[in-house]
Order: sequence, then structure tokens, then C-alpha cells
Amino acid sequence: MQQFRLIFETRVWYCSRMTSTNGYGPDNFSILNYRVIYGDTDKMGVVYYANYLRWFEAARSAYLRRRGLPYSDLENTEKVQLPVTEANLRYHRSAMYEQLVDIKVWVTDITSIQVKFQIEVSFEGDLLVRGYTHHAAINMATGRPTRVPENLVNALNRSEQITGNPFF
Amino acid sequence: MQQFRLIFETRVWYCSRMTSTNGYGPDNFSILNYRVIYGDTDKMGVVYYANYLRWFEAARSAYLRRRGLPYSDLENTEKVQLPVTEANLRYHRSAMYEQLVDIKVWVTDITSIQVKFQIEVSFEGDLLVRGYTHHAAINMATGRPTRVPENLVNALNRSEQITGNPFF
Amino acid sequence: MQQFRLIFETRVWYCSRMTSTNGYGPDNFSILNYRVIYGDTDKMGVVYYANYLRWFEAARSAYLRRRGLPYSDLENTEKVQLPVTEANLRYHRSAMYEQLVDIKVWVTDITSIQVKFQIEVSFEGDLLVRGYTHHAAINMATGRPTRVPENLVNALNRSEQITGNPFF
Amino acid sequence: MQQFRLIFETRVWYCSRMTSTNGYGPDNFSILNYRVIYGDTDKMGVVYYANYLRWFEAARSAYLRRRGLPYSDLENTEKVQLPVTEANLRYHRSAMYEQLVDIKVWVTDITSIQVKFQIEVSFEGDLLVRGYTHHAAINMATGRPTRVPENLVNALNRSEQITGNPFF
Repeated sequence: MQQFRLIFETRVWYCSRMTSTNGYGPDNFSILNYRVIYGDTDKMGVVYYANYLRWFEAARSAYLRRRGLPYSDLENTEKVQLPVTEANLRYHRSAMYEQLVDIKVWVTDITSIQVKFQIEVSFEGDLLVRGYTHHAAINMATGRPTRVPENLVNALNRSEQITGNPFF
Repeated sequence: MQQFRLIFETRVWYCSRMTSTNGYGPDNFSILNYRVIYGDTDKMGVVYYANYLRWFEAARSAYLRRRGLPYSDLENTEKVQLPVTEANLRYHRSAMYEQLVDIKVWVTDITSIQVKFQIEVSFEGDLLVRGYTHHAAINMATGRPTRVPENLVNALNRSEQITGNPFF
Repeated sequence: MQQFRLIFETRVWYCSRMTSTNGYGPDNFSILNYRVIYGDTDKMGVVYYANYLRWFEAARSAYLRRRGLPYSDLENTEKVQLPVTEANLRYHRSAMYEQLVDIKVWVTDITSIQVKFQIEVSFEGDLLVRGYTHHAAINMATGRPTRVPENLVNALNRSEQITGNPFF
Repeated sequence: MQQFRLIFETRVWYCSRMTSTNGYGPDNFSILNYRVIYGDTDKMGVVYYANYLRWFEAARSAYLRRRGLPYSDLENTEKVQLPVTEANLRYHRSAMYEQLVDIKVWVTDITSIQVKFQIEVSFEGDLLVRGYTHHAAINMATGRPTRVPENLVNALNRSEQITGNPFF
């Protein structure tokens, strides 16, 4: 005979600092959690140096989604994409297999034509990798640079809309 | 002035079927959630066919970890690894960017020398990819086949130890 | 003062078996060479199991290109894609860092709606991984199954057009 | 009846500038060719931004190998590794599917404790991505920084030993 098990829990999922006003900057960040898999590592036994850029992307994506503008909406409704024009990574320590890392992201600059993100990967409070990515706004129809849409500027300046869904 | 925001929530994280007895098989499964990133996709606009094997690995790893035997423990204490001897994937539908997919895994066979997993990737109830992986037990010191450790057999047969940590 | 160095060489790049007639099958194969990089390996010290599917793709692509129908032409002129419907891999030995592996591919079946490839990865004559991939023909405009284009059938049956360009 | 086809060719594989003396710098470069696969691309239709770091690695590896010191020898005989401490990428244009790109690499600095590489990815003469990577020398036994081995300094300063093997 089968039984069904229901698990109810009361948990604190987020405890994020809030500034009294909205706006981008180090106080308005998001943190994405990620569990390192075998496929992220290389024969040195630690995460391969290119794979942090995958995590950077996942964190930027979470930043937007949690502020009400999933990147796919930006593509589908604004017809705008944000290709990377520059990326930088400084490797301090290595992430290891099965670690549950924190990937913290915030916006450092918004101009009429580009957006800049800062990203920090850490494990249990120790900084592993710090980097940034710069993005241009591109009109998907023409493939040409365009203005950063107001919709996006608003989302980037918004505080995180807490949902409690840790996968959000 | 800064404020701190605490979010308490009551949620049902898992509602898994339990059989009255332990043991491997389709009733004793784990589900891992994963949000598709740009880096998983290819120019066809959907997830690249090789990347599902990354998810397969992540799900197997979660299966073990949630039963009290993280794969890294198997390596460090049992000095045993489980390299893949065969993998199979049937692609029914494509996973798309930003989808939060379910990766379901269970054990279909355990012998003295190998372990077999079945894995199903789905999105909102629709099956996307179904596959399996077979694994041999290898003694890390010699690189030679060895018996599947009793410790591992016990873990594979155990029910999921619910933790409520969705990243577990 | 600068000098320019010109290197002329006489080499045998290919020595492939030819059958007297065209047609697909084990006698009408292509071999792609690939040098294993760090990024292909995992912490077990060998190539990560998912990455062989990348090589499978590279070899299929070379097979078509060397027979006069680059896959991008198939997409651009025939408006047809060949998504994978099934993939299988049997792992016999592991490919290691810096090995120059041979990835051999041939066509095992062509029907009106699908194409099947066999692929073997070897190093210095030792078989490492053997597998296959099955592909459906899809109309890019509708996303629906379509007939395998005659253009493709002809290319698949053609012998390799030797070019001497090892990157071809 | 089977026939065997032998293809002899006379080709110019390399025509590299040589300076009259050895030494690192922009005149002492290597170029690695790579054919873009589907698995390198993302849904934007171009190469995913993280994958260029894979190519950077492949080019650095070729640079060393062609100067007589394969990276695996550095690991096995010198017991030294060169983990990346910083990486930078500037994305000018996108690499596309099936392009045969040139990945050009040279050494910009060698000190007692680190090595710096410059890398440029181009297609048919058009610059796509330019970047650099900095590397520390690490003693594999201790995991601690160590002096850049003389063996490595010599190799980095050596001119390319032309072999005519385009996969070298």
C-alpha cells in the first residue's frame, strides 16, 4: 500500500539588505545558489575556468527574472538582446565538486547603450571568483545597437521581488 | 538607513510517493529542478543534445546525496568511483531557455559489479527526454573493477531523506 | 630584419578505402581528428562522458561537409534540420588529455524520414567509445517532420571528396 | 572489388614570420585552427560567450606543444601547473557555426611567478574576440605558488618548431 508524505516547512529563504530607495548598485543584489557537478570540473580537480561564465549568466538571468523581467520577455516583447561586449574574471580560489556556491550579482552601471554587471562567486563566505560583464543593447530585427529599453532600466533599478521560490 | 527583510514562508517542497518498504525502483525516485540557461542551448534555439547528460549526472548525484551518501564521500571514504559504461537518450521534445525542468531519477538495477539509473526530464508534466546510464564500480587505487560497496547498495535502497533544502 | 619561412611538404593525408560504387555503410566513412583539451576532462582525469556527444556532432558535420553538403547549407537552402531523436554511447576506455583522437563516422540507415549514424572514437587504434545517433528530418518553417531531402540522400551516399584540408 | 586511394599533396601549411632571435612577444606566435560546431553556439545563433575560453586554452596548449613542451609534460615531469588567475575577453564580432576560425596566441610577459598570454580569435582576417589570460605557477605537490620552471621559460621563448602536422 502506498502512502503520500507531505512535508510542510517554515523556512527563511531570503534575508536581503534593502536600501530605503530603489536603484542599482551593490545594495541591490541577487544571489543564485548552484551545486557544482562533475561536468563543471576538469582534471585539475576543480571547476574549469570557462564554466564560471556559465554561472555569471545564470546569476544575471536570475537578477532580471526576480525583478519581473525574465530575459526571454526582453527578447520576445522588447525585441532586444544584451550580448556581452566584455567579460573579466579574477580567480582567487577554486570551486570544488559538490560545493553549493553563492553567485552574487548586481548592476554597476547603466547608460543609454550599455549595462554592466559585477559578479562574485563564493563558498561559505570565501570569495572564489570575482568578475564583471558588459552588455550592449541590440535590436534583434536589425542586429544593430539600440537604446537600453526603459522597461529594462526600470527592472534593473527595482528591488528583488521576493517569491520564496529558490529556483526563481 | 538600512532595513533587513525577513521572509517566512510555509511551503510544500516535496510530496513524494513512499512505498511501505525501502528498496530501489520507480517508486523510490528523486527529482532535481534546474533552470535552463543560454549556455545550455544551441542555434536551433533549444537545449543542445549533449547537455542532457550533464543534467542526468546532476540528478544521480542528488539521488545519492539525499540518501546520505554524497558521491564525493563514496570517492573519499570508499575509494570507489562509478564511471559510466553506457548511456542512452531518447529525445521526445526539446527543453527551452528559462524553463524550470524536472529531472527525475531512480535505480533500475543493482548487481555486484554495476548500477543502472533511469532518468526522465520533463517540463510541466510533459516528457522531454528519457534515458538511462549504466555504471561500473571502480577501485580508485587500482583503476580496476571492484564490487559495488555495501555502503552504496544501502544508500541506493534507502528512501529519500527529506531535508526541505531544495538545493540538496 | 624579418624573414619569411615557407614550408612545403609532401604528405599523405588520407588513405581511405573506396568501394567501387557509392553508397552509405561502413566502407564509406569519414575520420575527424581532435586534440583533447583540459576543458573536455573532469576531475576523474579523463574526458567527461557528455563531451563525446560534441565529438559525435563534429564528426557527422565533417561527414556531410566532405561530401559537398555542409549542414549549414542543408539549413539554409533545404530549410531542413536533423535533430537527434536517440543517442547511445558505450564507454570502453577513457580518452585522456592531449590525446589526438580519431572520430570515425558512417551512415547505417537512411529511410524516408530518418538517418542513422554510427560513430567510433579511438586513440592509436584502441577503441574508446562507440555509439550511434538517430536523426529525424524536420521542416524548419513548420517544425514538423518532413521527408529526408533527396539532396541529403545523395550526399550521404557519396564518397568523401578528398580535399587534403585536414580541417575540412 | 575494393581499391585504395592514396592522395599525395604538396601544400604550404605554415608561413610564419620569424624574428632573427628567439624570445616571446607578438612576433613569436602560434595559430590554431578550429571549426565551430553546433555545441559551441547558443540560441542567439552565435558562439556562446564562455566557449571562447575553451579555444583560448586550446591555443595556449598548442603554443607550448609546438615548442617542445606539451602541458602534460609540464605536469608530469616538472610537477607544475599553470592555473589561470585572470581572464579577459572583448567581444567584437561573433563567431558563427561552421566557420574555420584562427586562434592566435603569444606570450606578453614572463616573470618569476607568472606568465601572461594574449589571444585573438579571427575569421578570414576579421577580428572576432581579443583577450588575455594570466597564469601562476603552482607546485602540484603542495598546491602552493612556485617559480616558473626554467624549462618552461625556455619553451615560451622558443620559436615554433614547424612540424607540418596541422593538428600539432
